[in-house]
Amino acid sequence: MPDISSRGEHMPSSPIRKLVPFAEEAKRKGVKVYHLNIGQPDIETPANVMDAIRHVDMKVIEYSHSAGILSYRLKLAEYYKRNHIDVTPDEMIVTAGGSEAILFALMSCLDPGDEIIIPEPFYANYNGFAVAAGVVVKPIDSFIEDGFALPPISSFEKAITPRTKAIMICNPNNPTGYLYSLEELEILKEIIRKYDLFLLSDEVYREFCYDGKKHHSVMNLKGIENNVILLDSVSKRYSACGVRIGVMISHNKHVMATAMKFAQARLSPPTLGQVAGEAAVDTPEEYMKAVLNEYVQRRNIVVGSINKMDGCFCPNPGGAFYATARLPIDDSDKFCQWLLDSFSYENQTVMLAPATGFYSTPGRGKDEVRISYVLNVDHLKKAMKCLEEGLKVYPGRI
Amino acid sequence: MPDISSRGEHMPSSPIRKLVPFAEEAKRKGVKVYHLNIGQPDIETPANVMDAIRHVDMKVIEYSHSAGILSYRLKLAEYYKRNHIDVTPDEMIVTAGGSEAILFALMSCLDPGDEIIIPEPFYANYNGFAVAAGVVVKPIDSFIEDGFALPPISSFEKAITPRTKAIMICNPNNPTGYLYSLEELEILKEIIRKYDLFLLSDEVYREFCYDGKKHHSVMNLKGIENNVILLDSVSKRYSACGVRIGVMISHNKHVMATAMKFAQARLSPPTLGQVAGEAAVDTPEEYMKAVLNEYVQRRNIVVGSINKMDGCFCPNPGGAFYATARLPIDDSDKFCQWLLDSFSYENQTVMLAPATGFYSTPGRGKDEVRISYVLNVDHLKKAMKCLEEGLKVYPGRI
Repeated sequence: MPDISSRGEHMPSSPIRKLVPFAEEAKRKGVKVYHLNIGQPDIETPANVMDAIRHVDMKVIEYSHSAGILSYRLKLAEYYKRNHIDVTPDEMIVTAGGSEAILFALMSCLDPGDEIIIPEPFYANYNGFAVAAGVVVKPIDSFIEDGFALPPISSFEKAITPRTKAIMICNPNNPTGYLYSLEELEILKEIIRKYDLFLLSDEVYREFCYDGKKHHSVMNLKGIENNVILLDSVSKRYSACGVRIGVMISHNKHVMATAMKFAQARLSPPTLGQVAGEAAVDTPEEYMKAVLNEYVQRRNIVVGSINKMDGCFCPNPGGAFYATARLPIDDSDKFCQWLLDSFSYENQTVMLAPATGFYSTPGRGKDEVRISYVLNVDHLKKAMKCLEEGLKVYPGRI
Repeated sequence: MPDISSRGEHMPSSPIRKLVPFAEEAKRKGVKVYHLNIGQPDIETPANVMDAIRHVDMKVIEYSHSAGILSYRLKLAEYYKRNHIDVTPDEMIVTAGGSEAILFALMSCLDPGDEIIIPEPFYANYNGFAVAAGVVVKPIDSFIEDGFALPPISSFEKAITPRTKAIMICNPNNPTGYLYSLEELEILKEIIRKYDLFLLSDEVYREFCYDGKKHHSVMNLKGIENNVILLDSVSKRYSACGVRIGVMISHNKHVMATAMKFAQARLSPPTLGQVAGEAAVDTPEEYMKAVLNEYVQRRNIVVGSINKMDGCFCPNPGGAFYATARLPIDDSDKFCQWLLDSFSYENQTVMLAPATGFYSTPGRGKDEVRISYVLNVDHLKKAMKCLEEGLKVYPGRI
């Protein structure tokens, strides 16, 4: 029997995945598990999106254009215009989720062995795409004490080597919820310009900004238009993760022509998902506002509850639907497993994501967890109660 | 402006793509273009599949399990059982089209620099996936005179080096339509066993076998169960290319566990496509038979017509909906472009795929074209007439 590839051996397996069997076992025992471990919102997909799918009018479900259905890309251009981002349909490649957009961008811009700097903690799957593309992630520290703000220029400069090809950010951030200010993006711009790097920006949570804060896209940073690649997705925006529709956008024609070759090899993004995506652009403003209000309430419950718990700290995130909190625990992997296999409160428990999976520096994240506030207010309160009670009796409490 | 990656530079661009602007220009001039250049069938998607989409019943279009919705994998197990292939749901990973299945298999089994032997001509996008995965395609010759039968053992053995990790076939074949006999597969098995290689088999055209011939799957080769990986797709089977649903299957648990890590990184295959795929398994037998009959008629028209043309030869393919024909021409790239930009017959012309794109050995395929018989009988006859008339006056005729 031949060996699998060594890249396959090195492919990371998320710590959340390891917890799944424990959650299943807890459920088998009749314990109610509140899932705050994943970014799968409970919010209903907009009715206009479901309608578009139910009225799909085609005789043959054909391949679309490899860059996506033109009418969808035109519609996306409208969406971006509303968001003060000027892009044309030929500056877009519609992808199978934001995931494929990330992979195309890495493959088009970086060679195996090239390095990409990412402030950590970062979305765990970036590690997987990096292994798939053979590129090296160079993490730089961001800190919970600063609410996970952009690391200082000196951190970036210390991490830059002759193999550095790109910097990647997620704004608002998964797993921290941090929303970068315009000033921070301007600092980033200077680094990008000085070292002539690509800037990959994952902005899938663009709409989810709180407390009147405004989202600023890297697409509007003047002078680095050819360095910037926007990675986006309909998944979270319209609570339609399963349609698997994302988009890679850049004004850099050479990058887009290169990414198109990867796009052509896989023929086309999902046709039905694009039908959903096209309809989604016309989702009523009221839906978007209601969702935003819902998430603000949820954030307030999570952050408020945690900061009241003894020895806990949770910065108040400006966006997305995640918060990363520091808990008085020895090991977040052990704690999250313990919540599932050894604890329940009134026959309920909570599943959280150990923050270790969001750091690539060994040892970091051991006293942190990521909380996705993807459940309704009532369930969220109960989940927070479970966390509070759990922390009181956890044997590894420090 | 930073450079794109060199893998991006090396990413192949199919010769068919280069012809697209010429086809568009011909249409602008009012010329009717018969598209026999791509594998996009005109056959209607089964009504039961469209119905399933129109009756989709979910409040939230969620991520599915990374390996695919369990009910769909159970249904697929039924489908394979009917086709005398025994597989369980945990031996399957549902993918974004057969394309993603190929990429996962290459990434899981081969490292950058490892070699995969593929009889040529082969499906052009294998080259693209090889570049994406950093693996080296080692083509071995198959010949039109033999109808593109499996090359002899000696050809395989000559190509094997210490870096050889796998052999890949497509059965029935794209672009040749060749259907491997059980005897040929047994020969392949001996090579796989002797050198302990992976065998990747793309069987997306399984249903399309003609003249009473039977399809034999590599999944039933005894003694190499842990070497075999099946790559499959609903695209052609149910004329639903746009759903982007494929599957990677293996009895090798280590390979599947590794591929799952790649699958988890991209979260899930398209949910709506899986709804379509699950319904598709119950497509009535009459639909499948009608499609098969239609393709047989079409094949007979294409092969019959070409073999009557002066200086032309087309082997009679046993399966799929492609034929590769030898024409009395200097250069298939030039000829296919000429058909679009300099020729028309009764204001019509035909778009074919130059076979050069299906060979990785430079110079091969210059006197061959691939014909996809994806148009109805009437259009196909007209397209063949265009080809016949074109060949009479083509300046590069030899």
